[in-house]
Amino acid sequence: MTPLLIPMPGNSTLATELRSAFSCEIVSPELHRFPDEEVRVTLPAEFAGRDVHVLCSLDRPDDKILPIVFIAALARELGARRIGLIAPYLAYMRQDKRFNPGEAISSRPFARLLSQSFDWLLTVDPHLHRYKSLCEIYSIRTRVVHAAPALAQWIRTNVPRPVLVGPDGESAQWVSEVARDCSATYTVMRKVRHDDRTVDVEFADATSLAGRTPVLVDDIISSGQTMLSAIKALGRHGTATPICLAVHGVFASTAYDELLRSGARVLSTNTIFHPSNAVSLASPIASALEELHSSL
Amino acid sequence: MTPLLIPMPGNSTLATELRSAFSCEIVSPELHRFPDEEVRVTLPAEFAGRDVHVLCSLDRPDDKILPIVFIAALARELGARRIGLIAPYLAYMRQDKRFNPGEAISSRPFARLLSQSFDWLLTVDPHLHRYKSLCEIYSIRTRVVHAAPALAQWIRTNVPRPVLVGPDGESAQWVSEVARDCSATYTVMRKVRHDDRTVDVEFADATSLAGRTPVLVDDIISSGQTMLSAIKALGRHGTATPICLAVHGVFASTAYDELLRSGARVLSTNTIFHPSNAVSLASPIASALEELHSSL
Repeated sequence: MTPLLIPMPGNSTLATELRSAFSCEIVSPELHRFPDEEVRVTLPAEFAGRDVHVLCSLDRPDDKILPIVFIAALARELGARRIGLIAPYLAYMRQDKRFNPGEAISSRPFARLLSQSFDWLLTVDPHLHRYKSLCEIYSIRTRVVHAAPALAQWIRTNVPRPVLVGPDGESAQWVSEVARDCSATYTVMRKVRHDDRTVDVEFADATSLAGRTPVLVDDIISSGQTMLSAIKALGRHGTATPICLAVHGVFASTAYDELLRSGARVLSTNTIFHPSNAVSLASPIASALEELHSSL
Repeated sequence: MTPLLIPMPGNSTLATELRSAFSCEIVSPELHRFPDEEVRVTLPAEFAGRDVHVLCSLDRPDDKILPIVFIAALARELGARRIGLIAPYLAYMRQDKRFNPGEAISSRPFARLLSQSFDWLLTVDPHLHRYKSLCEIYSIRTRVVHAAPALAQWIRTNVPRPVLVGPDGESAQWVSEVARDCSATYTVMRKVRHDDRTVDVEFADATSLAGRTPVLVDDIISSGQTMLSAIKALGRHGTATPICLAVHGVFASTAYDELLRSGARVLSTNTIFHPSNAVSLASPIASALEELHSSL
């Protein structure tokens, strides 16, 4: 039977793109908020015996968790065969350690919560820093799609003489991979973080910047402060207008506007629906789905 | 070892009251919101071997669920003996049936989610309508505290010549119990609900109202429309200024202001912290905790 693809609110554009590469029927749920702020989820579909794919990017997760848990329960009650979660952006991956005494390591209970509702999880470049793999915290089958080839392809097509720049040490894994895929040089800045919103960066080696267009590459743009500091540092070296390229454009509060005001071009993949979306991952996600299903 | 009582934000007043009747140590967690809207929960406490009580009323549940799941996981990781949830108001009890095709029966997955994190649950008058008992959906030990005796006591002390009024059929279970406990007469109105916010009510029998102060009693005031219609219906019969008495004062958006503007006195128990709180349930909750612990 044709698999069912269920895009949660905000995920319809990617769902439509996915359907052109992965054979499925799209059915959108109706979410109704009662006056008391509880949610009612309605999805009249034929679930019996079918593979169900809930598509929900998990940025700003608070009001998304219960609806996806409710949808999964509905599908299971009504006889779905397997219920998977496609979460192009996966939340809570950055809390992977007790940084201070008494701090909850939220990535673990969050993983447990999703593992209790779904049979498998597909995501794009989760922020794996201290964990080597999602299977350290997810008890269900997981599949990771890498954005690097698509980012590299975009750079090759759109940026003459690029130099890739990682705005901090944690970005090294992304920037090195993208640089290799598009045969570009790269350099990584050193970050000094003061708090959630204040970050300084310094160049280790600025010689590679001369005469090139800097492409800042990172996995997540959230407050945007890391990127803003990097843009300022590039400005001090008199480079061409930089391009900011993120896998996941979370863009907390005014981050996107601040970045645009800095003069940079700001682009992201479509893991989180946003005006900055420029690189579609529909094709690699669809391929991964095909592979996942053939191996389940 | 002294039990640990962990009030989530908004639950500190009840926590302090509880401590005077139930021997425990109160430790408040720190909740920090990152720019990307994820939450960090910190609670430096000695968990090993202790009974842990998370106190969190679950009105407007979206931004409360992950923090309590994270606290429970933290306590469990650090060796807590048993981890219970005191949720004076329990969410999602009204979705106890598939009212339309494809509708999720949210009460069940919500109960499963809490049952996976906690060892027991204590709540006050859950909205049991089609379920006869919480054990139909909760797999953990549950204990229900009834507000009726405290409401009856408040009426006896504060209202001369009361007549209790149930604003609709579903309220009959609460109003009859309170009326019995304070030896008052009562009558129940008939409700015609048009949608979430539009409700009409009619009197079955208005003879008992003459010369008495009507006390409208219900388990939940949410949009307030049921109460407002009842207040209007009472006005048509020229009664004294009514008192609205709710177990759970959820008061969605402008509900509280609208009710006050109607001229009624609006009062609630302290299951949800609110200016209308007039009847404390600390004492019956503390007694139930003692009983629960002696039977665990």
